[in-house]
Amino acid sequence: MNTLELIKRISRPTPSKIVLLVLDGLGGLPGPETGKTELETASTPNLDGLAARSVCGLSDPVGPGITPGSAPGHLALFGYDPVSYNIGRGVLEAVGVGFDLQPKDIAARGNFCTVDGAGLITDRRAGRIPTEKNAELCRLLDGMVVDKIKVLVHPVREHRFIAVFRGEGLSPDVTDSDPQQVGAAPDIITALSPADEKMAAIANQFVAQAKTVLAEHIPANMVLLRGFSQQPHFPSMAEIYKLKPAAIASYPMYQGLARLVGMDVLPAGTSIEDEFNTLAQNYGDYDFFFVHVKGTDAAGEDGDFHRKVRAIEEVDRALPQLTNLQPDVIVVTGDHSTPALLKGHSWHPVPALLYSEYCRTDSVTEFSESACILGGLGHFPATQIMPLAMANALKLTKFGA
Amino acid sequence: MNTLELIKRISRPTPSKIVLLVLDGLGGLPGPETGKTELETASTPNLDGLAARSVCGLSDPVGPGITPGSAPGHLALFGYDPVSYNIGRGVLEAVGVGFDLQPKDIAARGNFCTVDGAGLITDRRAGRIPTEKNAELCRLLDGMVVDKIKVLVHPVREHRFIAVFRGEGLSPDVTDSDPQQVGAAPDIITALSPADEKMAAIANQFVAQAKTVLAEHIPANMVLLRGFSQQPHFPSMAEIYKLKPAAIASYPMYQGLARLVGMDVLPAGTSIEDEFNTLAQNYGDYDFFFVHVKGTDAAGEDGDFHRKVRAIEEVDRALPQLTNLQPDVIVVTGDHSTPALLKGHSWHPVPALLYSEYCRTDSVTEFSESACILGGLGHFPATQIMPLAMANALKLTKFGA
Repeated sequence: MNTLELIKRISRPTPSKIVLLVLDGLGGLPGPETGKTELETASTPNLDGLAARSVCGLSDPVGPGITPGSAPGHLALFGYDPVSYNIGRGVLEAVGVGFDLQPKDIAARGNFCTVDGAGLITDRRAGRIPTEKNAELCRLLDGMVVDKIKVLVHPVREHRFIAVFRGEGLSPDVTDSDPQQVGAAPDIITALSPADEKMAAIANQFVAQAKTVLAEHIPANMVLLRGFSQQPHFPSMAEIYKLKPAAIASYPMYQGLARLVGMDVLPAGTSIEDEFNTLAQNYGDYDFFFVHVKGTDAAGEDGDFHRKVRAIEEVDRALPQLTNLQPDVIVVTGDHSTPALLKGHSWHPVPALLYSEYCRTDSVTEFSESACILGGLGHFPATQIMPLAMANALKLTKFGA
Repeated sequence: MNTLELIKRISRPTPSKIVLLVLDGLGGLPGPETGKTELETASTPNLDGLAARSVCGLSDPVGPGITPGSAPGHLALFGYDPVSYNIGRGVLEAVGVGFDLQPKDIAARGNFCTVDGAGLITDRRAGRIPTEKNAELCRLLDGMVVDKIKVLVHPVREHRFIAVFRGEGLSPDVTDSDPQQVGAAPDIITALSPADEKMAAIANQFVAQAKTVLAEHIPANMVLLRGFSQQPHFPSMAEIYKLKPAAIASYPMYQGLARLVGMDVLPAGTSIEDEFNTLAQNYGDYDFFFVHVKGTDAAGEDGDFHRKVRAIEEVDRALPQLTNLQPDVIVVTGDHSTPALLKGHSWHPVPALLYSEYCRTDSVTEFSESACILGGLGHFPATQIMPLAMANALKLTKFGA
């Protein structure tokens, strides 16, 4: 029996409320001048005060040394083992742009690319065409019907798009056309089993027609498809935890991930204050809230140490809006680290605090990477956050007699 | 998907370099006079200085409470789950003497022993005959052909040898002839399934012929065989980590373990300075170096607390030879603990430090058991060392989008 099955057996609905506040990319690395991380540099009296009443620790989203993408990082926070609960690339892109995937849809990630006269790829990203140009080209391809299958083409950013195949008899088990290198021709998409022949044929026909349509649109005169996939069927948080969960996140990717585990998505607005207002307004209607803050990660990705510090301070200033609601359990953590020093996601464990009346407070009085090392949660897998939150909300019954 | 499969998917070759320095049996127990372990007693300014720039912790090679042999201890450090990746005793001995095992060979560990007139064992180790005598006796048995199967007999040390059965239709699934006690007759080797009957018959015939050949060679007038086994097929470090790995170890056992995971074995010399010279000379040709120091374990096994302290200090004095090369990642740890107090391997977690520019330094400024408890790596399985080293060398790409 895995942990989710166990939790499903012992979870029970109660009126108690859990708020999971995710500061995307929260964990950092010391800045060279001060030897302090972004979180250690930020002035965070409210988070520190909450940490003092909480149990703290450092969590690994996927595992030691593993740098998580956004999807694995969030699935772990929702309690789903991110290695077992896998989301295909095409579906993830569709989720990321808020595309309304149907259960039988097959989604692929697409690149506009450049091919030469011999059909060989000279640029896998078509010179990173502007997003506006992308949208214009997608309109040329969108809605094409191939052998009764409708192909929906939707722009993402720059050269990236999604192709969603809608109709009967499709399957995701086909190879990519993207050879992931220049100098080669796009690969023929092939079926992994006889049942997948139809999908492969349709996808190849779509690619051929797209090539014709795009012929004059150099540098974007061809498409590459990869990561054919179907919406996964994850057990919902309602099923597992017997929660009525809601997501407050302003980016489509996180809204989409929340929908995949059965959360309602509430309007998030554009600032942390907006998000906390949404939380307050809907506080009576749900018993679990996932609140997502993007600014921390965005600053880290840009390598902007001080902007990340300010993004953390902004959350800290707004925090009383959340704590004043007096949720039974508050978790504050990140889905992974995004140190400004590395300008990207990293493998470093993520500070986490869990507040409840029953959390068994530790000696940590500052919410920071170095302080959390000595916390009562220790160094733990992020998938343990939900069982701990559930327990602290008194939503788990005894295991065994 | 297990961790190695995951790492294999996300690893990438880069020019960055990792050095794994293993002080065999590093962990210890407090001496009764001072309450300090061997490592805490040793004067180690260089290791302490490195620890201050590193992230530290305590690692369990196999699991809490489990005392590892040399093979599991090292396999864990190389990232291979030592319970799943098992090496038979015969193969381990063959590996230990650098014997060139073929894939179908069946290797057994042998003891020369003494039997009395009734055929009962009076000394399982034949009075620990000198290695020279052992070699002479092995020459008498080596190359014997039993029913078209060639038996290769190779000396190890004192009373120990290996018997390697080479030919068609053999299998490792037979019982030992060594009853592991005196006063008993050697056991008949028996097949564990009908398919193993041939192996059992050949092994018994070899034992019978060896008894005849050795009849006049008291105290070494009989042989005992155990641990029949076949070379395991481990995925190589090149496959998993995309590393070009080299081993610098002066004992055949560690060279052999390194070969099993695909490392090149470099000439190690006889001292730690020799080993570090080899490291410097070959530094440009590899991106991963396993450097093995035996003195710490040997002193611990002998119960010689102060010799173990000196062995640690010797490494510390030579350490600048390593750090001056400025590897991107340096790991210093042991394959297990060997407290002088216990005169043998033990289950105690092993101090570990990992240095890199991106390691997120913790508050530990002394490389010792008690200081490492408070380190940023916490208390962790030794199999996590390689994923962490790989991550810190920026050799792992993101998992999931």
